[in-house]
Amino acid sequence: MARGRVVIEQAESAVLHGNAAGDPHVRSVPVYLPPSYDASERRRFPVAFVLTGFTGRGRMLLNDNPWSPSLEDRMDDLVARRLCGEMILVMPDCFTRFGGSQYLNSTATGRYQDHVIQELVPLIDRKYRTLADRDHRGVMGKSSGGYGALVFGMLHSDTFGALACHSGDLYFDYCYRGDVPKFCSEIQQAGGLEAWLTKFEAKLQKKHEDLLVLNIIGMAAAYSPNPATAPFGVDLPCDLESGEFREEVWARWLELDPIRMLDRYGEALRSLRLLYMDCGTKDEWHLHHGARLFTRRLKALGIAHEYEEFDDGHLNVSYRYDVSLPRMSRALGAEP
Amino acid sequence: MARGRVVIEQAESAVLHGNAAGDPHVRSVPVYLPPSYDASERRRFPVAFVLTGFTGRGRMLLNDNPWSPSLEDRMDDLVARRLCGEMILVMPDCFTRFGGSQYLNSTATGRYQDHVIQELVPLIDRKYRTLADRDHRGVMGKSSGGYGALVFGMLHSDTFGALACHSGDLYFDYCYRGDVPKFCSEIQQAGGLEAWLTKFEAKLQKKHEDLLVLNIIGMAAAYSPNPATAPFGVDLPCDLESGEFREEVWARWLELDPIRMLDRYGEALRSLRLLYMDCGTKDEWHLHHGARLFTRRLKALGIAHEYEEFDDGHLNVSYRYDVSLPRMSRALGAEP
Amino acid sequence: MARGRVVIEQAESAVLHGNAAGDPHVRSVPVYLPPSYDASERRRFPVAFVLTGFTGRGRMLLNDNPWSPSLEDRMDDLVARRLCGEMILVMPDCFTRFGGSQYLNSTATGRYQDHVIQELVPLIDRKYRTLADRDHRGVMGKSSGGYGALVFGMLHSDTFGALACHSGDLYFDYCYRGDVPKFCSEIQQAGGLEAWLTKFEAKLQKKHEDLLVLNIIGMAAAYSPNPATAPFGVDLPCDLESGEFREEVWARWLELDPIRMLDRYGEALRSLRLLYMDCGTKDEWHLHHGARLFTRRLKALGIAHEYEEFDDGHLNVSYRYDVSLPRMSRALGAEP
Amino acid sequence: MARGRVVIEQAESAVLHGNAAGDPHVRSVPVYLPPSYDASERRRFPVAFVLTGFTGRGRMLLNDNPWSPSLEDRMDDLVARRLCGEMILVMPDCFTRFGGSQYLNSTATGRYQDHVIQELVPLIDRKYRTLADRDHRGVMGKSSGGYGALVFGMLHSDTFGALACHSGDLYFDYCYRGDVPKFCSEIQQAGGLEAWLTKFEAKLQKKHEDLLVLNIIGMAAAYSPNPATAPFGVDLPCDLESGEFREEVWARWLELDPIRMLDRYGEALRSLRLLYMDCGTKDEWHLHHGARLFTRRLKALGIAHEYEEFDDGHLNVSYRYDVSLPRMSRALGAEP
Repeated sequence: MARGRVVIEQAESAVLHGNAAGDPHVRSVPVYLPPSYDASERRRFPVAFVLTGFTGRGRMLLNDNPWSPSLEDRMDDLVARRLCGEMILVMPDCFTRFGGSQYLNSTATGRYQDHVIQELVPLIDRKYRTLADRDHRGVMGKSSGGYGALVFGMLHSDTFGALACHSGDLYFDYCYRGDVPKFCSEIQQAGGLEAWLTKFEAKLQKKHEDLLVLNIIGMAAAYSPNPATAPFGVDLPCDLESGEFREEVWARWLELDPIRMLDRYGEALRSLRLLYMDCGTKDEWHLHHGARLFTRRLKALGIAHEYEEFDDGHLNVSYRYDVSLPRMSRALGAEP
Repeated sequence: MARGRVVIEQAESAVLHGNAAGDPHVRSVPVYLPPSYDASERRRFPVAFVLTGFTGRGRMLLNDNPWSPSLEDRMDDLVARRLCGEMILVMPDCFTRFGGSQYLNSTATGRYQDHVIQELVPLIDRKYRTLADRDHRGVMGKSSGGYGALVFGMLHSDTFGALACHSGDLYFDYCYRGDVPKFCSEIQQAGGLEAWLTKFEAKLQKKHEDLLVLNIIGMAAAYSPNPATAPFGVDLPCDLESGEFREEVWARWLELDPIRMLDRYGEALRSLRLLYMDCGTKDEWHLHHGARLFTRRLKALGIAHEYEEFDDGHLNVSYRYDVSLPRMSRALGAEP
Repeated sequence: MARGRVVIEQAESAVLHGNAAGDPHVRSVPVYLPPSYDASERRRFPVAFVLTGFTGRGRMLLNDNPWSPSLEDRMDDLVARRLCGEMILVMPDCFTRFGGSQYLNSTATGRYQDHVIQELVPLIDRKYRTLADRDHRGVMGKSSGGYGALVFGMLHSDTFGALACHSGDLYFDYCYRGDVPKFCSEIQQAGGLEAWLTKFEAKLQKKHEDLLVLNIIGMAAAYSPNPATAPFGVDLPCDLESGEFREEVWARWLELDPIRMLDRYGEALRSLRLLYMDCGTKDEWHLHHGARLFTRRLKALGIAHEYEEFDDGHLNVSYRYDVSLPRMSRALGAEP
Repeated sequence: MARGRVVIEQAESAVLHGNAAGDPHVRSVPVYLPPSYDASERRRFPVAFVLTGFTGRGRMLLNDNPWSPSLEDRMDDLVARRLCGEMILVMPDCFTRFGGSQYLNSTATGRYQDHVIQELVPLIDRKYRTLADRDHRGVMGKSSGGYGALVFGMLHSDTFGALACHSGDLYFDYCYRGDVPKFCSEIQQAGGLEAWLTKFEAKLQKKHEDLLVLNIIGMAAAYSPNPATAPFGVDLPCDLESGEFREEVWARWLELDPIRMLDRYGEALRSLRLLYMDCGTKDEWHLHHGARLFTRRLKALGIAHEYEEFDDGHLNVSYRYDVSLPRMSRALGAEP
């Protein structure tokens, strides 16, 4: 079987330099070059940006497992079986101390949206033989990466001409809100946000419950940053003193819920060559409800899309890339 | 050790006759008579009504366990150790097909509030040597029973002169709302409310997850009944077709959240001889937040109360009766 | 529906007086008298002794649950539906500080076998209108109670003429041995048996894992007592210092494994009017393997028996009494 | 920070060609070359072989995680902080269809011990600038990889002069035997070994419980192969028909328990420059007991070794390499 190869770009970011969260501004960004890339010095290829979920970064897409291939092995296999045309895959690293950035610009984390659009896209086009236009450039991802893909599709359809969203963060009322009370208790018990985070970072084992708490911190950093708030420039969705839910902060989160964004930015989606979504019917964060509501709205608006449900939960579903990568390669005109 | 004894009253209820949920109108109501009850034919005793939580009924308070005494054994012990004066305990059965009634009147379940106030209280005063006035009659309970106690204290302070609320249902935004998405998925997957309930009732083992779903049904039956809605005369907090949260139904629930009721009915609490509340700091339904918000409000209003937190979760905390029963007996003037 | 009634006998035991574990020698033993018991002063009834599992005692068989009737309610219902003839049910309390006694005599716990055979059987025959012979007296139980029933059937078939064993402790290699390493770690970590037990007894919540540890203590107290061993007169199946498994102690346990006892005492089972066994195919202690091996041996020996498997685990399977009680009542000649 | 680099060797194995389990005979073997490797064309380096646990293969040691560095990143960091001298790390792939090989030769899986000793060691020495003798070659690993390291130390101390064993499989009576009953039930329920494995391989999600079952299959394939047994040439530790434990098969397993091997092969360990072992005190497979018994024996035999315990379980403990790699590099004479 012909195999592609992976180059790890050390991307130095100007927009992330000196970011508020203190995260590095040089990032390892794996770039998958398809099997024929080295065979010809002229052939150009479409590009898909693949976005990881919360607590992830690009390199993790290459992680090996005997029963769940890395993205690299998966793509080699799809190309070999002629289910995918050949294309370049780019795996950004938008991880932060708070677990992720949702691929948004935020004063609390950094300008991760700008990093992708203004820095990584040009970098890849400069260094690799890409078909360097939006019709040959797609974005896809899972969970927070699916969220990122949807948002890029709405806000940057001039950059990305196709998107695939697996189990994306949607309908925040269902996917985040229910975790706020637990988050509140844990932070209170730790003695505040900074104390909690310090303790979390020192833990050799990060437990599932810890990650639920971190998730709310990460979302607050992305959706309700506030430079005036100590210690991290983040407004939380609950009052740490009284424990009360903060509706005014929640309203800010909802502004960035794709379900709500659809009203303002939905038109951009009409221009996409692919708008693919899926979700597991047992998603532990209830994201299938969001996916249904979103695609129901798309249908009502007459925006072309594909939607699939599968019988599984939220985690370890990278096998869904076997469904989206072929669609993406077709949409981007990738050739065998 | 001198022991009390338990009589099981077969209480025939007129107000529950022909109730909408099809539940029996004759109920087994255990009545604990303290050690000295039979010694004198004249002595009268204060009475405390003890309300069970969701999925409970009075008889369950007598359940035996080698490491967690029944209410009867617990009371005998407290009396013997002179920590409690002697009083009568009444254990109503307000269970329904939907797991409980919240001790409210509802067209979907039945008039359980009326059953307690108009039927059980007079029955007990008629058949037993009680001190038959509100100053010698208290109400207490845990979880939904704590909710019931709070509500009786606000709406029926002429009947009950003291209350104790352990881990009571409060601040519905935290204790119920987070379970709605899961509820919605489960009901949809079962093919609707009736199909789910039929399946549930046939299950030999009721799993924790099943009871989470039943809980939302039970709360909807109590808080948002609607005789016009098939099959059970209940408005649900989500749209079963789209999956969407129903804010207008939720608003009805909030009307019966003690946190909100305090505005309208809080004054009644001033007259109580005892207003005791507690909650575990690891309550899985996050009820400690509600308890804190409620008592914070009480404090602001200048309403006397006692509040304790303990280091535990929501379940198997009947040992907290060792804290409330002595207070209740003192408040009701029970004598050794 | 005609209902039976329950009398709680306060059985004072001579053989348990001053027992090594310091447990009470007066026990509450519920006696269920069937609906017709009070109707005639002459009619005599068969008797079934019902033995609870580990951590249980007779009173717990009466515990109420809206979806799982108490033994009393279950029996009333079976009699009303004419599935059972009328018989007396006796619910011994052979609980100990170590969680149970396996209904055996042991220097570490007490003479619980003698207590049942020499004290409770005569007491019941003396105080109630029983058919006081082995052909009208049966024994049944679940888990450790099923073990007790099997052992009584083998060792005391002159006292009991019928037995039913639900999910009984059998094939110790599978049901206990796998828990020894965990037991060993927990006891070592606590600083020894006494320290562990003290801590356990002080815990407000007994966790599942705690009960696994207690189970090994309880079994050691029953199967390998040794008055010379401090602190509790019990030889453990592992060396607390090195952690090593102790084959010589294990050999003593195996002597009391019904699978092995069958060789020595199996003949006694031929005389039984009923030898009923069942087990769930998902038994968490793997007891279905033991049940299969035991009944396979019975078959090879030509000993009449009935064996059923059901699709469930070990816990909360009291609905199986609906299967065994009718068989028991028939075997004992109980009449409607 | 100076960084090493990783080369993925495609190792073609003669001894694995046509292996019984049908696994590939060409394996991806990552080789970590330390920062200075490319700086000089003459410098030679010690080599450590790092063995993964059950269900693992060499590439997985490179998996990325934001809070748990890959072996590559970990080594770069240790070298940069001068805690480790520079050495080459080799990550063999001895994975099989049954989840692993225990690095043994077996007719059921293949000659994995020979593959490492006869093929990989010479390959690495041929292709890389190694210090090609046993005093500069070590072996280390975790769990089944720790088992492999111990066994290589006992059987091939002429090849490896140092070993480190993290949470290695030891004292089979505690670490495997308790899972046999569950294994037996699962295989029976699936309708046999082949049916189970087919179903397992088709599962998109491998659950923890599935891996427990696979573990017993894998160990049987390693410890009790039998070419005469259909379908996989493996004798199982239980009789699938009766469910009974098979002592005679178990005896074969025990022959390969390091605790027992010590009697026959322990002398070889005296020659090691490093014999390091550790284990978590909450190891879910109870391996701390085995580690204690093993090191207790080493002490009695006067064999030099180091042993540490840490407060954690069995999984996600790769941070322990931070303890063993420096020791290994010192033992092998690696220089900064």
